[in-house]
Amino acid sequence: MKGKANFSGVIAPVLTPFGEDGAPDPDRFVEHAEWLMDEGCTALAPFGTTSEANSLSVDERIELLAELVDAGLDPAKLMPGTGMCSVIDAVDLTEHAVDAGCGGVLMLPPFYYKNPSEEGLFRFFAEVIDEVGDDRLRVYLYHIPPVSQVGFSLDLIGRLTKEFPGIVVGLKDSSGDWNNMKAILETYPDFELFPGSELYLLDGLRHGSCGTISATANVAARALRKLYDNWQGSGADKMQDGISALRKSVQEYPVIPLLKALIAHYRDDPGWADMRPPFVPMPEAEANAAIRTLADRHDFRLAVAAA
Amino acid sequence: MKGKANFSGVIAPVLTPFGEDGAPDPDRFVEHAEWLMDEGCTALAPFGTTSEANSLSVDERIELLAELVDAGLDPAKLMPGTGMCSVIDAVDLTEHAVDAGCGGVLMLPPFYYKNPSEEGLFRFFAEVIDEVGDDRLRVYLYHIPPVSQVGFSLDLIGRLTKEFPGIVVGLKDSSGDWNNMKAILETYPDFELFPGSELYLLDGLRHGSCGTISATANVAARALRKLYDNWQGSGADKMQDGISALRKSVQEYPVIPLLKALIAHYRDDPGWADMRPPFVPMPEAEANAAIRTLADRHDFRLAVAAA
Repeated sequence: MKGKANFSGVIAPVLTPFGEDGAPDPDRFVEHAEWLMDEGCTALAPFGTTSEANSLSVDERIELLAELVDAGLDPAKLMPGTGMCSVIDAVDLTEHAVDAGCGGVLMLPPFYYKNPSEEGLFRFFAEVIDEVGDDRLRVYLYHIPPVSQVGFSLDLIGRLTKEFPGIVVGLKDSSGDWNNMKAILETYPDFELFPGSELYLLDGLRHGSCGTISATANVAARALRKLYDNWQGSGADKMQDGISALRKSVQEYPVIPLLKALIAHYRDDPGWADMRPPFVPMPEAEANAAIRTLADRHDFRLAVAAA
Repeated sequence: MKGKANFSGVIAPVLTPFGEDGAPDPDRFVEHAEWLMDEGCTALAPFGTTSEANSLSVDERIELLAELVDAGLDPAKLMPGTGMCSVIDAVDLTEHAVDAGCGGVLMLPPFYYKNPSEEGLFRFFAEVIDEVGDDRLRVYLYHIPPVSQVGFSLDLIGRLTKEFPGIVVGLKDSSGDWNNMKAILETYPDFELFPGSELYLLDGLRHGSCGTISATANVAARALRKLYDNWQGSGADKMQDGISALRKSVQEYPVIPLLKALIAHYRDDPGWADMRPPFVPMPEAEANAAIRTLADRHDFRLAVAAA
């Protein structure tokens, strides 16, 4: 764990609630963000995969980010997703994030065209960084090949950190491949690495990572934070076991629809379960069965009922 | 081949030229579109994969489409790409296309989230069609799983055509899988099917498809049109052989960079080769070698030199 990291700890990719008109609901979005910080999140990563960010327009993201900042959330603790297929859109979102004072941005690579060259990906990020042209910018690379298909090689990470020291500072690794995380930690020890799942929270911290940016933090931030705060203590392995068991249970279901169903259930706010296509909400019976299973297995209800 | 098709023949996904400032160059874009129609294209599909459309912003596409129409190109012969990850963006682009009088739109499915349910994809298209709410809308589904990873099953095609008859009217099949094309033609004989490569032009026409929407039409429309106009003649198989040989040669290189390099070379306009990241132009030596190879093998230079 690095002391000088810009970000560290337990970071939630904030779920995005939609209103009856299908538009993002800023009030419930801000309420959820504030609750996540109260629950122990050290920072927030709105507009991630879990946030259905890729189902939002550029303008919707810009407006929702402004709502968070206007509501008084500390922008230094915000790492919004700003990576897009189009470099124009990525520059636009990134500029807004920097202007809002965000502590960093989490950037997907352009993901439509497959097997891009390393040079092409390098140029994409170089263009964003040059166009934004602001030394407050902190870029976290978003490596999630199971979804984006396009990822970051060790060589590309090296080239970007060398060319943009102090700007390209970290990476969220949602590859699910511990060997990849270890290789990054060993090759670039000053780089801020965030495993994209709390399955690797303790192992990551023991190898020099900074915490986790994880979907599950939307419903279990308190438990994740407890481990983060006590990872060097004697009870850490047992805490990791409990956290890992919950995560594995969650992964038995479609994760994003389940997380929204859990929030909807424990807040007694059925509209929270709504999703934008191509996602569809879990059917009610399936959602109820999943909620019961999680509650039975993991004494789960308390964490969310605190809302 | 269907007589009542909205579109038929040889359709080019128009390459997008960029100026020195990195913005799309509307003058060269219009010039290329007009040249393609002169070369024998029956219609144009701007903002396809070949057009680097996924590297453009929504506003850039809207402006370029307006340029084509303002320049006098018949909008009934335009089938712009309007499929986006966000249903909001897809509605926006599709509305502009319908308002401009476009004969149809070519829609990618939302492609960030992988393995979406059929229900989720159905809802995405239903939402676009309902929001646009215009009976002039004609939707062509864009099936290109090698790039988008997300595609259209036979069941989904059936559900969409049944729910939106006269609106969802066709599909571009860039799967590269002839069995898939045949299955669509056999299952939905009234559907307008366009193979995404001229490798299947003659076989497709013989099985009831409407022509082709193909990247190569940017540089070889004349040859494709000749086969399209004479597919029932005795020389058709030989023409297909020549067309297929050229296509296979093209596929030995990175296709989109090569097409831009070819246009740049034969128009003596080096800037035509520029690309937006994540693409990079072919290195000059590689491009020159490829251009020579194509000219030697296929008597290729004439088609483009006519510009």
